Amino acid sequence: MPRIGAFGEVMMRLQVPGYETLSQSSRLNYSFSGSGVNVAAALGRFGHECSLISTLPDSSVGEAALAYLRKLGIHTAYINRGGRYVGMYFLENGFGVRPGKVTYTDRLGSSFNTAALQSYNYAAIAEKIDVIHFCGITLAMNDIVRKQMKQLAADVKANGGTVVFDFNYRPSLWGENGYAKARSHYEEMLQLADIVMMNEKDPLFILGMRTEESDRVAQLKQLIPQVVQQYGIRIAAGTHRQINADNTHSLTGYLYKEDVFEFSDKLNFSVYDRIGTGDAFTSGIVHGELKGYSPQQTVRFAAAAAMLAHTVAGDTPDATEMEIFQVMRDSIGDVER
Amino acid sequence: MPRIGAFGEVMMRLQVPGYETLSQSSRLNYSFSGSGVNVAAALGRFGHECSLISTLPDSSVGEAALAYLRKLGIHTAYINRGGRYVGMYFLENGFGVRPGKVTYTDRLGSSFNTAALQSYNYAAIAEKIDVIHFCGITLAMNDIVRKQMKQLAADVKANGGTVVFDFNYRPSLWGENGYAKARSHYEEMLQLADIVMMNEKDPLFILGMRTEESDRVAQLKQLIPQVVQQYGIRIAAGTHRQINADNTHSLTGYLYKEDVFEFSDKLNFSVYDRIGTGDAFTSGIVHGELKGYSPQQTVRFAAAAAMLAHTVAGDTPDATEMEIFQVMRDSIGDVER
Amino acid sequence: MPRIGAFGEVMMRLQVPGYETLSQSSRLNYSFSGSGVNVAAALGRFGHECSLISTLPDSSVGEAALAYLRKLGIHTAYINRGGRYVGMYFLENGFGVRPGKVTYTDRLGSSFNTAALQSYNYAAIAEKIDVIHFCGITLAMNDIVRKQMKQLAADVKANGGTVVFDFNYRPSLWGENGYAKARSHYEEMLQLADIVMMNEKDPLFILGMRTEESDRVAQLKQLIPQVVQQYGIRIAAGTHRQINADNTHSLTGYLYKEDVFEFSDKLNFSVYDRIGTGDAFTSGIVHGELKGYSPQQTVRFAAAAAMLAHTVAGDTPDATEMEIFQVMRDSIGDVER
Amino acid sequence: MPRIGAFGEVMMRLQVPGYETLSQSSRLNYSFSGSGVNVAAALGRFGHECSLISTLPDSSVGEAALAYLRKLGIHTAYINRGGRYVGMYFLENGFGVRPGKVTYTDRLGSSFNTAALQSYNYAAIAEKIDVIHFCGITLAMNDIVRKQMKQLAADVKANGGTVVFDFNYRPSLWGENGYAKARSHYEEMLQLADIVMMNEKDPLFILGMRTEESDRVAQLKQLIPQVVQQYGIRIAAGTHRQINADNTHSLTGYLYKEDVFEFSDKLNFSVYDRIGTGDAFTSGIVHGELKGYSPQQTVRFAAAAAMLAHTVAGDTPDATEMEIFQVMRDSIGDVER
Amino acid sequence: MPRIGAFGEVMMRLQVPGYETLSQSSRLNYSFSGSGVNVAAALGRFGHECSLISTLPDSSVGEAALAYLRKLGIHTAYINRGGRYVGMYFLENGFGVRPGKVTYTDRLGSSFNTAALQSYNYAAIAEKIDVIHFCGITLAMNDIVRKQMKQLAADVKANGGTVVFDFNYRPSLWGENGYAKARSHYEEMLQLADIVMMNEKDPLFILGMRTEESDRVAQLKQLIPQVVQQYGIRIAAGTHRQINADNTHSLTGYLYKEDVFEFSDKLNFSVYDRIGTGDAFTSGIVHGELKGYSPQQTVRFAAAAAMLAHTVAGDTPDATEMEIFQVMRDSIGDVER
Amino acid sequence: MPRIGAFGEVMMRLQVPGYETLSQSSRLNYSFSGSGVNVAAALGRFGHECSLISTLPDSSVGEAALAYLRKLGIHTAYINRGGRYVGMYFLENGFGVRPGKVTYTDRLGSSFNTAALQSYNYAAIAEKIDVIHFCGITLAMNDIVRKQMKQLAADVKANGGTVVFDFNYRPSLWGENGYAKARSHYEEMLQLADIVMMNEKDPLFILGMRTEESDRVAQLKQLIPQVVQQYGIRIAAGTHRQINADNTHSLTGYLYKEDVFEFSDKLNFSVYDRIGTGDAFTSGIVHGELKGYSPQQTVRFAAAAAMLAHTVAGDTPDATEMEIFQVMRDSIGDVER
Repeated sequence: MPRIGAFGEVMMRLQVPGYETLSQSSRLNYSFSGSGVNVAAALGRFGHECSLISTLPDSSVGEAALAYLRKLGIHTAYINRGGRYVGMYFLENGFGVRPGKVTYTDRLGSSFNTAALQSYNYAAIAEKIDVIHFCGITLAMNDIVRKQMKQLAADVKANGGTVVFDFNYRPSLWGENGYAKARSHYEEMLQLADIVMMNEKDPLFILGMRTEESDRVAQLKQLIPQVVQQYGIRIAAGTHRQINADNTHSLTGYLYKEDVFEFSDKLNFSVYDRIGTGDAFTSGIVHGELKGYSPQQTVRFAAAAAMLAHTVAGDTPDATEMEIFQVMRDSIGDVER
Repeated sequence: MPRIGAFGEVMMRLQVPGYETLSQSSRLNYSFSGSGVNVAAALGRFGHECSLISTLPDSSVGEAALAYLRKLGIHTAYINRGGRYVGMYFLENGFGVRPGKVTYTDRLGSSFNTAALQSYNYAAIAEKIDVIHFCGITLAMNDIVRKQMKQLAADVKANGGTVVFDFNYRPSLWGENGYAKARSHYEEMLQLADIVMMNEKDPLFILGMRTEESDRVAQLKQLIPQVVQQYGIRIAAGTHRQINADNTHSLTGYLYKEDVFEFSDKLNFSVYDRIGTGDAFTSGIVHGELKGYSPQQTVRFAAAAAMLAHTVAGDTPDATEMEIFQVMRDSIGDVER
Repeated sequence: MPRIGAFGEVMMRLQVPGYETLSQSSRLNYSFSGSGVNVAAALGRFGHECSLISTLPDSSVGEAALAYLRKLGIHTAYINRGGRYVGMYFLENGFGVRPGKVTYTDRLGSSFNTAALQSYNYAAIAEKIDVIHFCGITLAMNDIVRKQMKQLAADVKANGGTVVFDFNYRPSLWGENGYAKARSHYEEMLQLADIVMMNEKDPLFILGMRTEESDRVAQLKQLIPQVVQQYGIRIAAGTHRQINADNTHSLTGYLYKEDVFEFSDKLNFSVYDRIGTGDAFTSGIVHGELKGYSPQQTVRFAAAAAMLAHTVAGDTPDATEMEIFQVMRDSIGDVER
Repeated sequence: MPRIGAFGEVMMRLQVPGYETLSQSSRLNYSFSGSGVNVAAALGRFGHECSLISTLPDSSVGEAALAYLRKLGIHTAYINRGGRYVGMYFLENGFGVRPGKVTYTDRLGSSFNTAALQSYNYAAIAEKIDVIHFCGITLAMNDIVRKQMKQLAADVKANGGTVVFDFNYRPSLWGENGYAKARSHYEEMLQLADIVMMNEKDPLFILGMRTEESDRVAQLKQLIPQVVQQYGIRIAAGTHRQINADNTHSLTGYLYKEDVFEFSDKLNFSVYDRIGTGDAFTSGIVHGELKGYSPQQTVRFAAAAAMLAHTVAGDTPDATEMEIFQVMRDSIGDVER
Repeated sequence: MPRIGAFGEVMMRLQVPGYETLSQSSRLNYSFSGSGVNVAAALGRFGHECSLISTLPDSSVGEAALAYLRKLGIHTAYINRGGRYVGMYFLENGFGVRPGKVTYTDRLGSSFNTAALQSYNYAAIAEKIDVIHFCGITLAMNDIVRKQMKQLAADVKANGGTVVFDFNYRPSLWGENGYAKARSHYEEMLQLADIVMMNEKDPLFILGMRTEESDRVAQLKQLIPQVVQQYGIRIAAGTHRQINADNTHSLTGYLYKEDVFEFSDKLNFSVYDRIGTGDAFTSGIVHGELKGYSPQQTVRFAAAAAMLAHTVAGDTPDATEMEIFQVMRDSIGDVER
Repeated sequence: MPRIGAFGEVMMRLQVPGYETLSQSSRLNYSFSGSGVNVAAALGRFGHECSLISTLPDSSVGEAALAYLRKLGIHTAYINRGGRYVGMYFLENGFGVRPGKVTYTDRLGSSFNTAALQSYNYAAIAEKIDVIHFCGITLAMNDIVRKQMKQLAADVKANGGTVVFDFNYRPSLWGENGYAKARSHYEEMLQLADIVMMNEKDPLFILGMRTEESDRVAQLKQLIPQVVQQYGIRIAAGTHRQINADNTHSLTGYLYKEDVFEFSDKLNFSVYDRIGTGDAFTSGIVHGELKGYSPQQTVRFAAAAAMLAHTVAGDTPDATEMEIFQVMRDSIGDVER
């Protein structure tokens, strides 16, 4: 059974329960998440042995985060203790036309983002990991974290492992001229990556590619093969999302492998908790690949995993393989063909 | 005013609040229900004097169950105390495409299911009851409980009372070859019953009847009159349910009496809590019959009662006659003709 | 910056959380509201300095109400302390076809409704207020409160201020022959008012006007100009609401000024908390007028403010000007043209 | 088995959970209580058939009150529906040196306090009741309620039943010169009463008796026999309470019957919820008398019942006879001799 | 670092929050515990690698239990999935003189208690475990479980591991003539045990030993050395508990090793949650022994661990070694010498 | 009426409800506090007009903080909006011998601690403030904040206002050699201060003074007059606290003015929430001085205010003058003379 690692920050999510705002309420529910956490937990639910590579403070908050990760089924042997803080964000739920709000506290001062360059034993970890997951959010943090990412990716690759990289570009984290600042870092990661999560916007905006097409799908079909060829990527995958007038969402997944595009049905569904659903899609793609599903099966599985993740409380996907198969089979009435 | 009894187990419902799973949460809301509880409470809300015939343990849990039944307006004079446990089930709410989950604890060891054959004073109860309700779930428990059911039904019938029987076949309770195991018990109950809740699937699967029709309504129209005639049933009634792509449900009620079918409109509505809504329909049929409504009025009332029960927290219907009349009148815009 | 006052009662809202009824639950959430409270808070969120003119008891409940008003950003210098009680209402949420329920406690004995005629320093307040808001609910209370209303309106008008009056006729408060009882009081307020919130039903039923038209919009277009002319009103505004089969609401706002009608788009949206949304519309109209928006901008702003108020917990609107602009811009897909 | 009635108002208790104040919190827990409710529920837990004679509104609040009373095991056949409101009080818990606070809403407008003089069928009720309980709080309400009390007491007495009367004088309810206003009403009730709950303060302040003694116990021993003789009372009983520096309470019960005083031990205990504990003592006295306990047993049972009631959430005693016997036996170490 | 195993059932604890009873409340908090769970978690907090050997059902409840154990830091590799149920108990908190109440559901039907004799791979587990913990509660279940216990104990002992056995005799589990039924099973376990938790009552009642002494400590000093010698036990340890009039508890630990008794100070403390505190003491003894503390250090550490466990929510101890050292140092003022 | 200002940071307090730890729970209650917040709110409750001078971010968290401050009755006109974060701390309650835990997030990056030197309009504020409060915690932050403090203190003093300074030295904030780093800053503040909160430890450790006395009171009596004389201080005041074996606290206040020491009684009390109680004492001293109480009255009032603040939920004192007078009168039984 392949052993999977994810490198990334653990965030504390502080959510106002129900539909009150931070000004109205006096209560919060908290949990711990992050892109790596979500992917490791989701793949753990699928039966893989998953570890997080991260740093947490030696405080009550760090203890609580560790306990939460263990509860999610994540192995914590590669989590260092040190530094002082955990990155946090407040979440106020929206309702109907009123959008939800996310407010961050200072994550740059977190234990993860202040860990020393050599605080992880890259070589030793790389030996015990068959697949490693990275996310573009981490790439936005600071130079040391970027170096940690690249070194770990290189070591895993050198060791014969598979590198998964999710573009996940967040404009607010890169600031002004963000695309320009980000490009070289993304390019370095692409050189190392085997499986890449992206859609047509990523080559357009981050890699600076061009297209004459105006339709999203046409752009995708033109640009993704170019990226894949240029960087020697094995699999590219991603989603198109559409928010409907009745507050439901529609999602279509794609997977590009060996010169062929496969698309999932366009799934239409109600949304309980949107955050982390991209990580569910990623996990579905990795799982399908590790289990040897056909590309068509894989992208359908990943899209269903993402759909189900919208119905689960919290950022972190919770569905088993069986539950995803069941929703692929039963909810056929819900699918727009 | 007719006095109504219901014979059945009291279950403790342990519901995870909101949309978390049992693994995610640490809190439960509890209540007490059961098919007999639901029917007795619903008919009590309509103004009848309703008693439950059951057994509860002499423990804190039994005390809590009794207090809850009293709160629902159910008379508890025929509830024995003894045995050790209350049957329980956990309920995790679904959301959208994610289905809810019910997980049972051992109900076969409950006070109700371990009560001695002669623990109820059948003759005395039969004298004070004009209408008695039974449910097919109880029939699935064990031989002693089945004997208790049949004896009480026979005594009420002998005393001139009305016997209501709801098929309510649950495959998981009968196990392998369940239909075969169940048939003779259902047949015995049908011999004793005046009002029977069923649809076309019951004669097809449990009674082993046959039809050439493939449409559900055509099957119903063919099979129900046969059952009614064969067993000398006064009234047969039931529903067809359809779950729509937007998670709303549609429900159509039928009532067959004196060789005539009456159908309610097809009602379309959002669902808050689905469990126990069949009991609301049964209560509406019994109430309409006791109050002398026309069959058309009765089936419309019962369907509206079932629809409203989907919007109420908990298993147990809570609507008054006036509230049901109001929704029959006001929600006309919602009805698909 | 204009200083705004609102004259009215503070009510305590006692809401059963979730979808349980008062019989099922054992918990309440409480807040404080009222038409004047809602308008003052909403205009305060838009940046105006807003005061409530009211009376609260010198008790823990009065203290809690004051603290809550301050939290809402309302200035409390014109709130007297005295009397004994706060008017209260219980709110049980509906779900789907099951309607919500409001149950009042005795508000006629409240501090506000028992305050002596001269308990407010009308002249002093009028000097410090540029715009004053009144609501027809207050007009239904008793003679002393009506006199207080009219005196304050007259003093503000005499001082060059603007008088806003919202018809807000509540049949249950006026009792039998309510329209007849109410007419002269409404007429007196109209004589004093500059901005009036109403739709075609108000002239028809309260003022006893007639129309041959049967369509609501045609009635509106015929009757509003007549009222405006007869009473020398500067601006009339109001809404038409429609409740759809899928429990969404649709709302269209109108504004009539200088002989011209302006209408908002018909907005369609999901509803979280309906109470107080009319006050959000009023606040939008007053704000647009104070800021010099065009009538078209004003009515669109007010309708969007009302729509957003349906998505916010509690009676009291919470949106900033920026949030309303954002929903006017972003939710264009949701709008039915 | 004796059938017991209690005549009195049902109050809604609105308690701020934990130790926050009404200004700090936004949540309330509610329950229903009242002196008659507490006595009926406590005696019901001891196995008697207990009814409340009262009036509740035909509203959601009235429904919730009825359901709550049923849950407490109280028979509701003599509860009329009518009027508009339920009396309410807010409860903010104290902590240590910070005292708790009770804030009433208007109870004079409640359904109970506005019921017509002849709204109860006194003669019919008196025939079905062996023991009837009244409380001095009810005596403070208004003339009609006082007449209802006296008529019901007279009818029960005439029918051979036992009248229990608890002085329970509340200064805030009688206002200025309260003792003078109250005296004649208390004297009338004493003429009708068989069992009277009081201590030395009641004859001193309400009945205007005199004593040279300064010690409380000496006063009690002098005054109670005088009252008992003068009004032909069968049993007098009551408590002395002391609040200790460590926030524990001490309680000593007395019972005077057939010219003999019996005293309980002085019980010392921690307090969770003080309200309603006097009603627990009353219930213990009535129960001991009905069961034929010796006076010494009765007063010890009543004192233990009162002690236990301090440890139970809510106003209403919850202990069974067995639980009281157990605490009488086990907590002997806690007793100060 | 020694690897520790604990063999035992996982119980679901369903606790009514606050001080309400099951009849009063409608909410429960749940967690998972058991003697083995508590010991494994406590020793895990001290830095050891701890596993539970048990069986859980393949249901939502089993999933939730597993997630909870992982959160506690327990390794779950030796937990089988199978059977149908989890043993459960309800906990109603007491207050002051009102005792708490525990109500069990049927644990004999649990997955653990119905697992097949050979369902655990004893030899393989024994190889990977240095210390194994058993508890007398498990011994009370049924013959198959007893055989599983003894086989696992024998295999660990044969492999050179240490066997810890806690008498923990529960009269309610053994029924009539329980001591006689239990004796031979306890004797078999003592033959296999290295570290035994007991006090003087265990040899007296279970092993049928005799003493002329009447003082508890004198009995202890006479009987424990006899047991130790007879069964070749390395260490015996246990506690004396005293419940004080002010609801505080006092605890004195003893440890007997190499013919010497060591006693802790008598610790006096307030109690938040009493359940599981004996397991904290056991864990302290095992930890002291594994770390090579002096017997005096060990018993003081274990007693402080037990004291701290009374202050922690839930059954399962939560203190780190550092926190126990801190309370040993700081709370010296609280100690009665 | 004197206008009072307080300069300081607003902290968000995130408290785990009940007695669970951050690892065990999933819920937090939040509120906003800080030394200046507490003093401004407490003096506001005494009837003064109180403002906070601070900086909050323009985010949902900043909005929530502002709303909370308004609810506390604090004027917010001098609160700037800017920067990005609010300082936060987690609070886990202790129980009995288990101590509570406070875990900070990064406060140095807060809006308050990153505000530009000239972001406050010192001169304008100083003109409108009669009394200004500062706290030693603020002095520990950074150079710019220290300069802001000193400039505002100087401007208020120059304008004839009163400067209150509370030593409040926190070792963890000053780090290694903290006393040496802090001394000159404290000395500068003392030069500007009129009323100083301190006890004997402050001159000993921070100012480096010496004494031959070993008793705390003797040290206090020797050192405080020296400090007062050296820096020209009008009033010095402070407390001695003692934590008793039964978890109660004892507190004695002192006040030194015009060469005379006054002491309060030693108050003994149970503690609900210890944080912020020193600010209650400060507020009592300032209020007594502003109202012209005698020094003996002032110190007794301040000690009672501090005692009451231990019984109130949250950091911020909530008592009115009347409530403090009441506890000074009623709790006399609790006082150790």
